[in-house]
Amino acid sequence: MSDVITAAMVVIGDEILSGRTKDRNIGHLADILTTIGVDLKEVRIVPDEEAEIVAAVNAVRARYTYVFTTGGIGPTHDDITADAIAKAFDVPCEYDAIAYALLEQSYASRNIEYTDARKRMARMPVGAVHINNPISVAPGFNIGNVYVMAGVPAIFQAMLDSVTPTLKGGAVMLSQTVTSRFGEGTIGGPLGDIQKANPETVIGSYPKYLDGKFWTELVVRSRDAASLAKAKAEIEAMLAKIAANA
Amino acid sequence: MSDVITAAMVVIGDEILSGRTKDRNIGHLADILTTIGVDLKEVRIVPDEEAEIVAAVNAVRARYTYVFTTGGIGPTHDDITADAIAKAFDVPCEYDAIAYALLEQSYASRNIEYTDARKRMARMPVGAVHINNPISVAPGFNIGNVYVMAGVPAIFQAMLDSVTPTLKGGAVMLSQTVTSRFGEGTIGGPLGDIQKANPETVIGSYPKYLDGKFWTELVVRSRDAASLAKAKAEIEAMLAKIAANA
Repeated sequence: MSDVITAAMVVIGDEILSGRTKDRNIGHLADILTTIGVDLKEVRIVPDEEAEIVAAVNAVRARYTYVFTTGGIGPTHDDITADAIAKAFDVPCEYDAIAYALLEQSYASRNIEYTDARKRMARMPVGAVHINNPISVAPGFNIGNVYVMAGVPAIFQAMLDSVTPTLKGGAVMLSQTVTSRFGEGTIGGPLGDIQKANPETVIGSYPKYLDGKFWTELVVRSRDAASLAKAKAEIEAMLAKIAANA
Repeated sequence: MSDVITAAMVVIGDEILSGRTKDRNIGHLADILTTIGVDLKEVRIVPDEEAEIVAAVNAVRARYTYVFTTGGIGPTHDDITADAIAKAFDVPCEYDAIAYALLEQSYASRNIEYTDARKRMARMPVGAVHINNPISVAPGFNIGNVYVMAGVPAIFQAMLDSVTPTLKGGAVMLSQTVTSRFGEGTIGGPLGDIQKANPETVIGSYPKYLDGKFWTELVVRSRDAASLAKAKAEIEAMLAKIAANA
């Protein structure tokens, strides 16, 4: 498992913690990382408080291959992500010449004043590299193994699209879903035995409940196609056996 | 601020980190806690790995008034939350007599075998108190300041409904929303001044983007009605001034 690529996500924003805004970025990042074979191992949602952001980012960037943050890169006083990331990396946070010029040009072309608040969006930790923002110009940035992106879902997704091709891809995780018409109580015992006998796979069991009935989706994941096929066949045989005895 | 009641949430489940399942519990818990005046300060999503669950729960239960967990309390081998919470509290995890009997009775009444997998759901850290489950019988539990609940949203919400009346309510957080037709770049500077002048309030700025236009929702929160009204009036005056000059 030496080439397993791992990741963590840090969602920054009081609005998520208050319920005011419902996060839509965690699920998207999870889907994309699964597709390219990067294991998302941890997500933290933290408030707009510098010490909390610094502590969370430093904790996860030391543990995982990549860290993705969302939120707090706009022009208002509660947008403190750039400063917090600079502090985490112990570098100054300064106006980035290219970002400053891009924003200046963009506002000039729309006859909008380039206010101090707007200029804030050009600030980055020294040494950071831009992440392109095709929607609203103000760039995200990458420093070390940390990718700092917008919280607005459309902008986050566009930024992530430009980041993913640059990540070193782990082996893609293969998966197969087996739908069980039996609930977890029926299949839990034998399923555990199958997991034990197939250590190269990760078998997830997702209980579903609808109109008073329980059923289960079983997802087998593996980086190895043969291991995946073997575990899947054993699960199907187990379900057939239960059905025959029901 | 001595009676501020704080909380953290720990979401347990590989299926959320892989994107297989999209979390719907974080936003719900955030809404409910905001309504009853408890500040949700942190959320962590961790995989179905005992060491990760133990570390996350121990980190947050030491820092916050309450901790709420979701997921991992079903009957399958990947449901390890009860064991992990027991380990975090350094107590044994055993069959709970009442939960065992409740489940036994429920399955007997439906002529369903009470398998070892189903019996797993009656296991709890010694000293834990039930959280009622009106939907599928298997209870959650409370130990210390940690509330362990189901991951299936309908069951989680029912469990939370029975927990919230037992929490010591902080003062309810009041909030008022002001809609600004100006984007953050226009209002960011003066809004920051208003936040500084009104330390008893928390002013959040939520940029919106639709059809090429930016606008902003400004939410003022405070536990004190007079502080809230003062800050809101200053924001409205600021917006009126910008509109007059536009």
